[in-house]
Amino acid sequence: MPRIAYLGPPGTFAEQASRALTEETTPELVPRESIRSALDAVRGGEAFAAGVPVENSVEGAVSATLDGLASGEPLVAVAETVLPVRFDVLVRRGSSARDVTSVASHPHALAQVRRWVAERLPGAGTVPTSSTAAAAEEVETGSADAAVVAPVAAQHHPELVPLARGVADVDDAATRFLLIRGPGPLPEPTGADRTSIAVVAHDEVGTLGEVLSELALRGINLSRIESRPTVDGLGTYRFFLDLDGHVADARVGDALAGLHRRCSEVRFLGSFPKAGREPVNARPSASEQAFRESAAWLERVRSGRLDS
Amino acid sequence: MPRIAYLGPPGTFAEQASRALTEETTPELVPRESIRSALDAVRGGEAFAAGVPVENSVEGAVSATLDGLASGEPLVAVAETVLPVRFDVLVRRGSSARDVTSVASHPHALAQVRRWVAERLPGAGTVPTSSTAAAAEEVETGSADAAVVAPVAAQHHPELVPLARGVADVDDAATRFLLIRGPGPLPEPTGADRTSIAVVAHDEVGTLGEVLSELALRGINLSRIESRPTVDGLGTYRFFLDLDGHVADARVGDALAGLHRRCSEVRFLGSFPKAGREPVNARPSASEQAFRESAAWLERVRSGRLDS
Repeated sequence: MPRIAYLGPPGTFAEQASRALTEETTPELVPRESIRSALDAVRGGEAFAAGVPVENSVEGAVSATLDGLASGEPLVAVAETVLPVRFDVLVRRGSSARDVTSVASHPHALAQVRRWVAERLPGAGTVPTSSTAAAAEEVETGSADAAVVAPVAAQHHPELVPLARGVADVDDAATRFLLIRGPGPLPEPTGADRTSIAVVAHDEVGTLGEVLSELALRGINLSRIESRPTVDGLGTYRFFLDLDGHVADARVGDALAGLHRRCSEVRFLGSFPKAGREPVNARPSASEQAFRESAAWLERVRSGRLDS
Repeated sequence: MPRIAYLGPPGTFAEQASRALTEETTPELVPRESIRSALDAVRGGEAFAAGVPVENSVEGAVSATLDGLASGEPLVAVAETVLPVRFDVLVRRGSSARDVTSVASHPHALAQVRRWVAERLPGAGTVPTSSTAAAAEEVETGSADAAVVAPVAAQHHPELVPLARGVADVDDAATRFLLIRGPGPLPEPTGADRTSIAVVAHDEVGTLGEVLSELALRGINLSRIESRPTVDGLGTYRFFLDLDGHVADARVGDALAGLHRRCSEVRFLGSFPKAGREPVNARPSASEQAFRESAAWLERVRSGRLDS
């Protein structure tokens, strides 16, 4: 039973994501007090892997995860999942909407259901808690009447029942989570993969443009780019890039080798199937066949055979 | 004694260049009536190599050579030499400047010494001939008094003597010649090499820019680019590129493989020491070491070792 570390407490979206990321196994989920601590549990061998959030459609990149992956012993992402940010509202068994006079949750969660609460629980006050999971505790102990929680919370509170499910003022909010592991065989390419890297470019005019050209010239789609100052001080940046394809793909490996030559630091952060399984189609000039053929052609030319 | 084909007749700059290109051997020089015919002599096995002009500093590219290399059985350049376009003026033994009333040469040559003739042989008429070599014949037979010739012509006409040497109205005019051979081992890299290729780019917006970016991103200097319509009609062009470096250099091979993937046709036209022996310095991100290290790094990453 592999141990999977995640940002606790239990009953949050982080637990739910970690379950989704490991659904083919029956993991022992180990809550940690921070993202850094969850990653360090993997580095220290106390956990086989960690489930951590990496970006949210409303709030953007999760800096603690980016920084935690960029420094320290190398780790890699081996899976991702996208969790819609939709809440369940739990109440005590026998309660109905008209019994609810107070609604508890983490302030971020309360902010995302404000309109729903105003319409469906008019007049109810709000009780801020340290996590969505803690809100369920408040309802259980009677300190609040309703809790806005991650769907997984119900499993920890069988005495509570849902008043509503899939609640969110904004329909499409979602958080992407990664399953992070230590060194070891990478996931096999599936034809619908994403590769994450972090690079520090030499501080020269045009270097970032050249980095992006290395990808563009090989027909590699860049789906995300974030910059974070390095510890060397403001002015030097580390760029986090997500690109379509697997490092085992010829064009991706070729591009990454190019970045390795060009950048003062390239850290590979993983190749794994995209959550949405959207196929990645290489254009003809960047296909596996094109790379095979060009390598064979070059070998012929270098040997003087000239059979172009 | 290797047979070297060249554009005749004997006694021209083409013969002189062919001697310079093969100075380490004692070739048998075989004049041909055209550049195409000299190249075909190599293709047909009648000659070991051909010495042909490829560009002139005044008149530009020599289309017959470019087209002759781009189609037909593959050939490669294995050496180059740059010949200054400076003429000798030959007269009959015993003649002096004041005896000269007519000056013979190919019209191109006469054009390049017009000022010198006006100043040093005032009043002399001009006699156009089919080649500079033919002009020497005219002087020998008495049909003209002076011949404007390639320096090598004197060797064919020991009865003629130089009235002047190194004559040219424009000081720096020069012609570059290539020694062309059939398939076989390429010249070893010297660190001061040039590589010639011909590419046909897909007719898409930006393709030529991408071709040039493949070179620029690897720090490869492009010293020459010429375009010639392909036989497929106007609108489709073949680009002749000269770039610094040898196909055996990692960055050059890598770039050429990239072009092979991207272009509908890439023909390798040779890697050979530059006539001027100017060293080609790869920038750090394109050095042999950088390529070795990036390949080793990629192998580690793909194997999941992550020791970045």
